[in-house]
Amino acid sequence: MNQQELFEQIQKKRSFLCVGLDTDIQKIPEHLLERSDPLFSFNKDIIDATAEFTVAYKPNLAFYESLGSKGMISLEQTVSYVKSKYPNIFVIADAKRGDIGNTSNLYARAFFGKQKYDAVTVAPYMGEDSVKPFMTYENKWVILLALTSNKGASDFQFLKDEKNGDQLFETVLKTSQNWGTTENMMYVVGATKAEKLKEIREIVPNHFLLVPGVGAQGGSLQEVAQNGMNSKCGLLVNSSRGIIYASTDVDFAEMAGKAAKAVQQEMEVLLKEGGLI
Amino acid sequence: MNQQELFEQIQKKRSFLCVGLDTDIQKIPEHLLERSDPLFSFNKDIIDATAEFTVAYKPNLAFYESLGSKGMISLEQTVSYVKSKYPNIFVIADAKRGDIGNTSNLYARAFFGKQKYDAVTVAPYMGEDSVKPFMTYENKWVILLALTSNKGASDFQFLKDEKNGDQLFETVLKTSQNWGTTENMMYVVGATKAEKLKEIREIVPNHFLLVPGVGAQGGSLQEVAQNGMNSKCGLLVNSSRGIIYASTDVDFAEMAGKAAKAVQQEMEVLLKEGGLI
Repeated sequence: MNQQELFEQIQKKRSFLCVGLDTDIQKIPEHLLERSDPLFSFNKDIIDATAEFTVAYKPNLAFYESLGSKGMISLEQTVSYVKSKYPNIFVIADAKRGDIGNTSNLYARAFFGKQKYDAVTVAPYMGEDSVKPFMTYENKWVILLALTSNKGASDFQFLKDEKNGDQLFETVLKTSQNWGTTENMMYVVGATKAEKLKEIREIVPNHFLLVPGVGAQGGSLQEVAQNGMNSKCGLLVNSSRGIIYASTDVDFAEMAGKAAKAVQQEMEVLLKEGGLI
Repeated sequence: MNQQELFEQIQKKRSFLCVGLDTDIQKIPEHLLERSDPLFSFNKDIIDATAEFTVAYKPNLAFYESLGSKGMISLEQTVSYVKSKYPNIFVIADAKRGDIGNTSNLYARAFFGKQKYDAVTVAPYMGEDSVKPFMTYENKWVILLALTSNKGASDFQFLKDEKNGDQLFETVLKTSQNWGTTENMMYVVGATKAEKLKEIREIVPNHFLLVPGVGAQGGSLQEVAQNGMNSKCGLLVNSSRGIIYASTDVDFAEMAGKAAKAVQQEMEVLLKEGGLI
């Protein structure tokens, strides 16, 4: 999916919501545990209930890997299901990978060759050759960690470069623009730092930003839109727990759908205010 | 496995070799492709041929993930095989993970709960809460990326902090010492920067270092030992391709054993020179 196609989906659905499929075997409704593949059963129902309101899904791989190869099967099933039933929904592997070039090649093969993800999150610490292999696949995306929403973000991401005073996350944003384009690179920017979004938009005016941390992690959707929206929206705002665990009872899918719809309606207002729909 | 036990294994085997199980389905001998689990078949034979000469194995997860859940089954089989047949060999998940705290918890559960790895490589970009969950398991280790051996290492790892002139990898070494101890934390230090090892040893005199990049990536074992060895050896030096692909014919295991033995013999000399055996 290219940038224009993604923007068209946002306009059509009046939403820039990404639903995080952080599906935890310890949190899904009990009645699903009897199924042959409880994680996939849960995801399938969540997807069918929320697809109307979302432009992206983002499974976090840790939740599946924690169950070993069985969890990976649930994940493969989930991605296949989305891509066959809802081919216009953008699917992000939230994997935060990053290794030397020849190893990153293999991760790229895993996510874009073997499986049909549209994007993968990548950590920047190892630099250019750890990132570029993901960008050799047409219409596929790297989503590079820039400013994360967790407490530990302040350990290194705000360190200032003695040469120019740029903070590390700013250097990551500036340097990595030489590696890709607005057609194959996005950035992770935590919404708990909404005030930082304005600065970030000055550095990367045209890139899409993946914003986690709205909801459970405390960010405000309105602030994010005010500071981060560009002429093609340029935002995918993720919500995980607030949607997928809206209920932990038999009505979990219905309630997830309602929660997604509520966010979509808020986003529709913001898209209108931005003159984008 | 604790630090003293690891050192004892090094003394007993007269080796600080780590064999990297970067097992690529496209590189293993053709006759194995007929087996039901070619990757595991290859690894099993490599392990049996090299176990005598090595104190650690380090599967790189990308090679297994690139084959999807099937590859993950091969990997699980491999780790189980090592831990049941050679329980004193240290097994490292070269995964380079790193995510917000509650997600890192799940990765830790995957590697140390579900599977029986001794250590996992972790990327530092997201800071303390992305690293600490891995250190809550007794006798398990985080191996934090400090200075990597790839070209892209210079993109960010050498940036100097305007406060004190420390390069980013030095800040990572200094800051992260507050997160763990010499009993649950090691560091990745690329051997292509052997001259840097001396500086690193001043910052972390007592930690074990995992040194990739000897052999195919160009480092010299002797330089690494001269600059990096401490009173408990403090080094695990990895070799992947030079050992596991010593031959790509039916004699692959035998030749891997010979290649591992050659490295072990070189290491024995260095351990003697260091007065450690």
